[in-house]
Amino acid sequence: MASKKIGQATRKFTNPPIIIGTGTVVGPMEGRGPLAGDFDVVLPDLTCGEKTAEKGERKFLEQAAQIAIERSGISKDIVDYYIAGDLLNQIISASFSARQLAIPFLGVYGACSTCAMGTALGGMIIDGGFADYVLVACSSHYQTAERQFRYPIELNVQHKPTSQYTVTGAGSLVLASSGNGARVTWATTGKVIDLGIKDPCNLGAAMAPAAADTLLRHVADTGQDPDTYDLILTGDLGRVGSELFRELAKDAGLDVGNNHNDCGLMIFDCKTQRVGAGGSGCACPAVVTFGHVLREMERGKLNKILLIATGALLSPLSSQQGETIPGIGHAIVIEW
Amino acid sequence: MASKKIGQATRKFTNPPIIIGTGTVVGPMEGRGPLAGDFDVVLPDLTCGEKTAEKGERKFLEQAAQIAIERSGISKDIVDYYIAGDLLNQIISASFSARQLAIPFLGVYGACSTCAMGTALGGMIIDGGFADYVLVACSSHYQTAERQFRYPIELNVQHKPTSQYTVTGAGSLVLASSGNGARVTWATTGKVIDLGIKDPCNLGAAMAPAAADTLLRHVADTGQDPDTYDLILTGDLGRVGSELFRELAKDAGLDVGNNHNDCGLMIFDCKTQRVGAGGSGCACPAVVTFGHVLREMERGKLNKILLIATGALLSPLSSQQGETIPGIGHAIVIEW
Repeated sequence: MASKKIGQATRKFTNPPIIIGTGTVVGPMEGRGPLAGDFDVVLPDLTCGEKTAEKGERKFLEQAAQIAIERSGISKDIVDYYIAGDLLNQIISASFSARQLAIPFLGVYGACSTCAMGTALGGMIIDGGFADYVLVACSSHYQTAERQFRYPIELNVQHKPTSQYTVTGAGSLVLASSGNGARVTWATTGKVIDLGIKDPCNLGAAMAPAAADTLLRHVADTGQDPDTYDLILTGDLGRVGSELFRELAKDAGLDVGNNHNDCGLMIFDCKTQRVGAGGSGCACPAVVTFGHVLREMERGKLNKILLIATGALLSPLSSQQGETIPGIGHAIVIEW
Repeated sequence: MASKKIGQATRKFTNPPIIIGTGTVVGPMEGRGPLAGDFDVVLPDLTCGEKTAEKGERKFLEQAAQIAIERSGISKDIVDYYIAGDLLNQIISASFSARQLAIPFLGVYGACSTCAMGTALGGMIIDGGFADYVLVACSSHYQTAERQFRYPIELNVQHKPTSQYTVTGAGSLVLASSGNGARVTWATTGKVIDLGIKDPCNLGAAMAPAAADTLLRHVADTGQDPDTYDLILTGDLGRVGSELFRELAKDAGLDVGNNHNDCGLMIFDCKTQRVGAGGSGCACPAVVTFGHVLREMERGKLNKILLIATGALLSPLSSQQGETIPGIGHAIVIEW
């Protein structure tokens, strides 16, 4: 027992789960961004030939999961668990994709932190001896998120400079108890942190304190210097949240200026693409990490990274009822 | 590894997590039902002194969790994980309660199956050596669910005979790696099953096939005869779903007529209380199992039970877009 528990919230895998396959699908806008070459599929439009954006989201989530299974070289039938989530009410993208996949299903909700939470959970299930293969996936969609959380896109409401642009896409990976690939070695589970931000158009600011809290607890639990990591990757704080994250870390005595980047800033060219303060959505950290970062590891450019995926745990109703916006940051360490 | 995996989806805990404390809170209507004496708190009204029903739900979810921690005789600070979910969009009851509790948080969504899914996950985390204490909780609320999934209660829309009545309440338990109490010994994870039911006022029928599928897989995986169990407890299929569940099991050669009951039929007096086909909601199987059933175990009336908690994984939007209703059933075995 003692060897796995490191502090209250960090866990060290004794038999680290291995990422044996990934699948990433993105929308046309993400396909014009700087990381386009690292995604498996760039969709020509936002509906995937379906009648509604929601059905389209479901379809490309299933596609990402299928690609991850194919790349793993295993049969779908031997996958023990499918852990998935998305931003839509009652996580319908995930649930309906689970109907199609017919794998025992565990639905999770962590907003944009879902990819890290699912990977950490899958890792614990594998390392605990309960599974040999776990499929993890999540998705988001600009149109489905806009109309659910903000305004129907037909209104063409102007975005604030602090607003982030929801990434259209899905990311998936297969974790295995043995095989070849990058390994997930540590996980630090987030606490819900709320410093009182009320503006649902400034989610980066709402999530930054949770990301910093998780970083500080990870460093305190493990004794790892932030410089140990080739990359400390937050996602998706965007421009505003990233600055706040670095300031909060600095205030606590940690300088992450050299090796920090944010998925929301990486996926788009924020100067030429009109994306406000950057990208967001479950798919943002998922496709950047499972697509781009893992390929950078294969290319020998990164060896050890800390992903802190962050979620804003609001609903339109909680905001309408005057609540502030709680945030959470789930961290995993991936090593090549 | 081999000893924990039994078939594709059943897992046997080698160090079974122990339920060292529970907390249950219910609304006034549930407090007039036949199980009232087995709940810790019966609320005098539906708002808990808060301005909105949603804030009330959050408050009594926190209360149930606090009671479970107190009954466990442990400090909140040593709880490793808080696993929680609810029916509201973006599981705000769970997320906001996690802000208050300040325990590392894993948000889950399984609709009314949440209590069993959370307990199974918590069990795997403990048995895997990643935690000594896991707090599991979920909640639902008649008013918040009605206005989100169906109509504002002010409209006083007449319910169909197949409609179920959402239980107001919250159930919570603390799982521990050692201690005294009932033990969670097996878990069978549900697959998403959809036989084409479209009527969101007949969720029992939508969920029954998933409950039967999980029962059949549990029996096939473990070789356990259904008669081994003092009680096979579904929740919450209600009157319509329970009949279908027994028929589906019978068609597959399993007779559960003698030892089956359903949380949705137990929590209310369905003859005198106007609850349609019975109770429903995350809290329904949670308070019946964590409150009533565990007390029956303490009283020596039950020794070994199989809980199959069922969830209907629809959203109002999925129904509006013409989708059928997928269901899931997560099973756990509890032994005294």
